[in-house]
Amino acid sequence: MYKQNPLSHIRVVLSHTTHPGNIGAAARAMKTMGLHHLYLINPRLFPDPQADAMAAGADDVLRDAVVCSSIDEALQGVVFTVAMTARLRDISIEVKTPREAMPLLLQEAATQPVALLFGTEMSGLTNEEMGKAQVLVNIPSHPDFSSLNIAAAVQVVAYELSVAAQSYLPSVPEIHPATHEQVEGFFAHMEKTLFEIGFFTTQNPARLMQRLRRLYARTRLEQEEINILRGILSIATEYNARLRARYQRENTKGTLNDV
Amino acid sequence: MYKQNPLSHIRVVLSHTTHPGNIGAAARAMKTMGLHHLYLINPRLFPDPQADAMAAGADDVLRDAVVCSSIDEALQGVVFTVAMTARLRDISIEVKTPREAMPLLLQEAATQPVALLFGTEMSGLTNEEMGKAQVLVNIPSHPDFSSLNIAAAVQVVAYELSVAAQSYLPSVPEIHPATHEQVEGFFAHMEKTLFEIGFFTTQNPARLMQRLRRLYARTRLEQEEINILRGILSIATEYNARLRARYQRENTKGTLNDV
Repeated sequence: MYKQNPLSHIRVVLSHTTHPGNIGAAARAMKTMGLHHLYLINPRLFPDPQADAMAAGADDVLRDAVVCSSIDEALQGVVFTVAMTARLRDISIEVKTPREAMPLLLQEAATQPVALLFGTEMSGLTNEEMGKAQVLVNIPSHPDFSSLNIAAAVQVVAYELSVAAQSYLPSVPEIHPATHEQVEGFFAHMEKTLFEIGFFTTQNPARLMQRLRRLYARTRLEQEEINILRGILSIATEYNARLRARYQRENTKGTLNDV
Repeated sequence: MYKQNPLSHIRVVLSHTTHPGNIGAAARAMKTMGLHHLYLINPRLFPDPQADAMAAGADDVLRDAVVCSSIDEALQGVVFTVAMTARLRDISIEVKTPREAMPLLLQEAATQPVALLFGTEMSGLTNEEMGKAQVLVNIPSHPDFSSLNIAAAVQVVAYELSVAAQSYLPSVPEIHPATHEQVEGFFAHMEKTLFEIGFFTTQNPARLMQRLRRLYARTRLEQEEINILRGILSIATEYNARLRARYQRENTKGTLNDV
């Protein structure tokens, strides 16, 4: 069962969070990516209306959140901990990117609880807290301004987890590409129409049609689109034909009257 | 020079943002990933102390933000627009993931301005706004709770951009893509022409134009191609106009209104 949803074995642990709004925003970020288990180590204010407001529908995550008084309590039963750091520290432990680390975390989460550990808004994790982790992760950011909001960091990491968890299946658009004959029929129709409306009096037909072919080759026309485009061409020429016929009819009449 | 930092050619456009705190948080998210250019279409409140508070040091991004009164103003000069959507819509235009789309955006940003377009907190982008984009992007999320906070969405996409930028190798495009204004000018011309030749007597104009927008969004029109297409449109109507004028000149008794 565990293997079917490794995400259900991942806890997000927030240590000594100062602003309750960030707890709510983190809960929302978690839920959007299919994470549910939130652990809070000595939050300054929780529960709090600010947290509820920022959760914006992730109130079940807040309701089930576990408030702990120490990091050891929060990591109880956990077999693998990834700690987030904003700094590329002068430490011997390897610092990975989220993209490198999340597949590892998922592997571990297949069978047992794992944790993602986030420090305070101002100072991050203490050295002691970081010592509890197996892997450090740094979200690559601009060297001059590397301070991600804590909920934004939760969002990025949860997103990487979610992408790793399910190689995303994009919505396959149900297209009905036109056949070769339909496309050729369209081009023939267009060329004929351009002659009829007098476009080729100033343009080289072969060169122009080549350009138009390239344009429509890139777009991969669908059957219905060809119907629309040919409908436009037909209306244009019919309109011209009616105008011309009526003009000639009435002009001839006029000429006869003059005689 | 452009090639050295494509990120400097990327605008983040937020349409009709309701909460100023989200604008500030989005500015912070942008700056952590090296993005600077923020465009705001009719924000409800801006500038605002809430925005400043949430920017938390990204006040230069807010200070340089451009407030616009329309999407066309915000996209002026832009050659490639990626629109974010929370829904996998029932549309035939392809929806990409951030990981697929951001390298494309970077390539386009090598030489000219590009845009990342985000809708409102409650309802996202309108169909009309989405019609201005060449690519739609959906951040994969949990089906039961897919509502990312707008600043969180900006953070995820900016992060993907930043990661992509690290392995960025510019390929010099051989094409001369049309700007947003040129493309919009073409659509306006086409709509006017279709009215004039009577195509909309049997078709729903809005729906039809939406289909045609999708078709041409896929093809990435070049400037010269727009000149050709508008030339065709002009000839079609000019020919009609000449016929009409000549008819009216030579036949003073009737009108062609019922043709």
